[in-house]
Amino acid sequence: MALQARALYDFNSENPGEVSVKENEILTLHSEEDIDGWLEGSNSKGERGLFPASYVEILRGNATSALNNNSTSTSGDTYRDSRYANVPPGGFDASYAPQTKVDNFSKSSSSSTFTQQQQQQASDDDWDDDWDDSSTVADEPGSAGRRYQDFDGNGLSTYRVSTSSMSRGNAQHAKSSATVSRNLNRFSTFVKSGGEAFVLGEASGFVKDGDKLCVVMGQYGPEWQENPYPFTCTIDDPTKQTKFKGMKSYISYKLTPTHTQNQVNRRYKHFDWLYARLVEKFPVISVPHLPEKQATGRFEEDFISKRRKGLIWWMNHMTSHPVLARCDVFQHFLTCSSTDEKAWKQGKRKAEKDEMVGANFFLTISTPPAPLDFQEVESKVDGFKAFTKRMDDSTLQLNATASEFARKQMSGFKKEYQKMGLSFKVLGQAFEMDQQPYSARLNQALSFTAEAYDAIGDYFAEQPRKDLDPIMDLLGLYQGHLANFPDIIHVQKGALTKVKESQKHVEEGKMDLAQAEGINDRCNIISCATLAEIQHFHQIRVRDFKAQMQHYLQQQISFFQRVTGKLEEALQKYDDV
Amino acid sequence: MALQARALYDFNSENPGEVSVKENEILTLHSEEDIDGWLEGSNSKGERGLFPASYVEILRGNATSALNNNSTSTSGDTYRDSRYANVPPGGFDASYAPQTKVDNFSKSSSSSTFTQQQQQQASDDDWDDDWDDSSTVADEPGSAGRRYQDFDGNGLSTYRVSTSSMSRGNAQHAKSSATVSRNLNRFSTFVKSGGEAFVLGEASGFVKDGDKLCVVMGQYGPEWQENPYPFTCTIDDPTKQTKFKGMKSYISYKLTPTHTQNQVNRRYKHFDWLYARLVEKFPVISVPHLPEKQATGRFEEDFISKRRKGLIWWMNHMTSHPVLARCDVFQHFLTCSSTDEKAWKQGKRKAEKDEMVGANFFLTISTPPAPLDFQEVESKVDGFKAFTKRMDDSTLQLNATASEFARKQMSGFKKEYQKMGLSFKVLGQAFEMDQQPYSARLNQALSFTAEAYDAIGDYFAEQPRKDLDPIMDLLGLYQGHLANFPDIIHVQKGALTKVKESQKHVEEGKMDLAQAEGINDRCNIISCATLAEIQHFHQIRVRDFKAQMQHYLQQQISFFQRVTGKLEEALQKYDDV
Repeated sequence: MALQARALYDFNSENPGEVSVKENEILTLHSEEDIDGWLEGSNSKGERGLFPASYVEILRGNATSALNNNSTSTSGDTYRDSRYANVPPGGFDASYAPQTKVDNFSKSSSSSTFTQQQQQQASDDDWDDDWDDSSTVADEPGSAGRRYQDFDGNGLSTYRVSTSSMSRGNAQHAKSSATVSRNLNRFSTFVKSGGEAFVLGEASGFVKDGDKLCVVMGQYGPEWQENPYPFTCTIDDPTKQTKFKGMKSYISYKLTPTHTQNQVNRRYKHFDWLYARLVEKFPVISVPHLPEKQATGRFEEDFISKRRKGLIWWMNHMTSHPVLARCDVFQHFLTCSSTDEKAWKQGKRKAEKDEMVGANFFLTISTPPAPLDFQEVESKVDGFKAFTKRMDDSTLQLNATASEFARKQMSGFKKEYQKMGLSFKVLGQAFEMDQQPYSARLNQALSFTAEAYDAIGDYFAEQPRKDLDPIMDLLGLYQGHLANFPDIIHVQKGALTKVKESQKHVEEGKMDLAQAEGINDRCNIISCATLAEIQHFHQIRVRDFKAQMQHYLQQQISFFQRVTGKLEEALQKYDDV
Repeated sequence: MALQARALYDFNSENPGEVSVKENEILTLHSEEDIDGWLEGSNSKGERGLFPASYVEILRGNATSALNNNSTSTSGDTYRDSRYANVPPGGFDASYAPQTKVDNFSKSSSSSTFTQQQQQQASDDDWDDDWDDSSTVADEPGSAGRRYQDFDGNGLSTYRVSTSSMSRGNAQHAKSSATVSRNLNRFSTFVKSGGEAFVLGEASGFVKDGDKLCVVMGQYGPEWQENPYPFTCTIDDPTKQTKFKGMKSYISYKLTPTHTQNQVNRRYKHFDWLYARLVEKFPVISVPHLPEKQATGRFEEDFISKRRKGLIWWMNHMTSHPVLARCDVFQHFLTCSSTDEKAWKQGKRKAEKDEMVGANFFLTISTPPAPLDFQEVESKVDGFKAFTKRMDDSTLQLNATASEFARKQMSGFKKEYQKMGLSFKVLGQAFEMDQQPYSARLNQALSFTAEAYDAIGDYFAEQPRKDLDPIMDLLGLYQGHLANFPDIIHVQKGALTKVKESQKHVEEGKMDLAQAEGINDRCNIISCATLAEIQHFHQIRVRDFKAQMQHYLQQQISFFQRVTGKLEEALQKYDDV
């Protein structure tokens, strides 16, 4: 008789090769061998495929009794125990989470493990390594991502997401991915982010006054309380620096925040470190992606200038965000003197030991007095989800169009105008053979016209850098945000699912009301934060697209005016002919 | 022994398959059979090929004595007799002219034959036929020509010439080509035009006061005396007319000359008839080519509008020309009432019987008192010849560039701008899903921007019609002129060659001084007319290219201003966002 197993939790297949199983379903195993946390077998319908090894219990001899025992042990306490001993995702699709792995993200229970890992991969010694050299393009933050299935497993999503976004709230794993087994990356964001632990009341920590965050009720719904001390930060032309007596070179950016007016020097790897801290700390905040890393040519002027532009965009989004702008690690990054090694390391260690990350981040949030209507929240979030898909599609299309338009202007358009210029020039040169003094001025005017068309060709070639490139930069940044939102929505939806489950459990008498109310309150916090983040996204979106469209049109206008001016100069030359 | 022949005149091969022969050279014939006036054989160098049958005398038995007799009969009178009995082109390259054929063009000796032919092909009955239908594209005037070898047979020329230009001064043959043997088209223009007959003093006729033309000495050399009664002529929108109770349709153009202010209706075939009269009459005047004939679609709006534009250009060049503008046939065409059939036919017959055509045209020209320096004339004409080649090359290039530029604007440029418009539109539509009232204005502005880019795409597509098309029309007209000039130069060069020959003959005692002086005087007339025509060409060229470049640049400026205006409107929409 073939080896059998019993499903401990529901598992909904979300990828080809996987097979869905229902809690208590008896499965036939094709092998006992666990491949990266997966087992191969057939479910009761005869569908064959992979399912997570941790979701099943292999049946050896006393299979039937084990099944019966488990299925009947449903008292309130036992429920909670069994549930949180092995933390299944409940009814939330395609999520599973063996307890042993959750520990890594549940700071209240395993912060020491976390801190050890952190220190291992980001020690002060490592800090001086040139991350740009050692890391590959694949594990960088940025918009160079891949398409992946939507969080509700319908396979219709068009979100692109970078690998760093896949592991958002889980930055330490991105850095130590060699020790992470494959199915770890398949964890539900709801679990990874600490959202589930928080909703279930497992998060705990002391919230200092400085860490407290407010979601207030604004005109259009919950929003982050404004930063009472708004500031911006300039990034000046980067310089090439060397260390170890010239053995190592790196590019240093000069940052000057307006609230201190003190310039600090930072390298890309410092931005990268900061980014990792932020995605780990804030489960439902869209941390802007850093400009792409690049393996080669990173000292080339074009690349440096492009990266600087990207970092300016990034900085702009950081300082615009009421929560991100004020957080300690960002302030440390912006204000710590570049020359005070000791202060820098202190701040760095403090940030890496920060307990208010992931699940605990939610502890720092205070909400408006009136709790939200979860149906309304769900509807808003669903609307936003649909919005992000459309926006993602349209930014992709605009980006492709703009890129092609830029290419055409730099090649075809330029060529056509310059060919006209050349033809006018050749005609003028032919006319110079005419031996007629009265046509000399026509010949000069033709020659001037030729130069004008040649110049207009160059104008076309130079223009995309001034107007289309910034549009594409903006689109790139927003594609990063759009890639962040599926995870944010996932966390919020996970919390809502927990609320529904708890209501059901209360009705079934499996959960007492106080517990369910606690879940409700915590789901309200997550919902307020999510809606505030969505609101912030819309506000900066309107601000940014307005500003960028204005800039684009102004540049286009000034371009066409320059072209007109050149033609007017040429036209004048014919007055004397 | 193979059949032999003796060359009576020099013949320089100008086409593949032909072979050059020298006067008195003994040739071996491969066949006695004359193919369309050509014999096949080998010259004394052993080169095999075709030469004109009329250039050789077949040797039958008494070959040697015939050769001796001929080569020694060189007294002055005999020279003239033998020369004008069989009229070879002398030293002028690739020209030959059996006397029998010259009669057709020498109006003093064979005007009756000519008139008969004329009447046969252009009788009043024929007049009502729809030439547009019955004639093929191949025998139309216009710029749709073919490349042919340069008049000096060097094979390097790039002149294109229409078939009508090939037979310029020979219009009656173009019309009755079925009765003309192939070698007739190969006649030297110098002969065909009547230039040779005139130089040799064979032209004669009574010059009425009204026919007299003056070449005056202007600032830059000989020029046509200005038309004391300058006028222009408008061509209004053509209408479709029918006759024979609707059995036949044709397009009628409304012409209104400024000097009469009386509108007359003319059809394309009337223009065509006029054109044939003009090229026949004026050997060294570049008659502007008519716009292309078209076999199909001649009632289509695009074609009619294009032809009208072409006729306007043509009319402009006609009325600008001091000689063409004033000539009787053109005035008849412009002023004769469309309803007075009888007056029209009278004028038509008169024009077709005009004796002052071809060789006799030169009789009507009076020159400045001081004769020209022929060396200077030759140098000027050579300079002009080089100029026309360069101008022809450069107008060809500009035409190709402009045509491609127009195509790109109507396809690629339009597409790129409209794709940008569509992408902005799609982004705006995505943004409309955002459920945020504060972004409604941004969405509207994006939608307006989308429309603006769509409109700009259309502007690009519409623009070539306004600026590049007129440039190409101008170039087409000038390519017609440039195709005319090789023949004009040919006539002038032929006259100069005759002068050189006559000087040689005088030195050798074969010609008396008075005869040579007559040739000199008549060559002076041809030279004055040629230089006046070249001068006129340069003047209208400078005028036309100045005007057209101004028009082009003005249109371009107004185009870019319109684009700028559209973008400024779009930009304003963002003020309220």
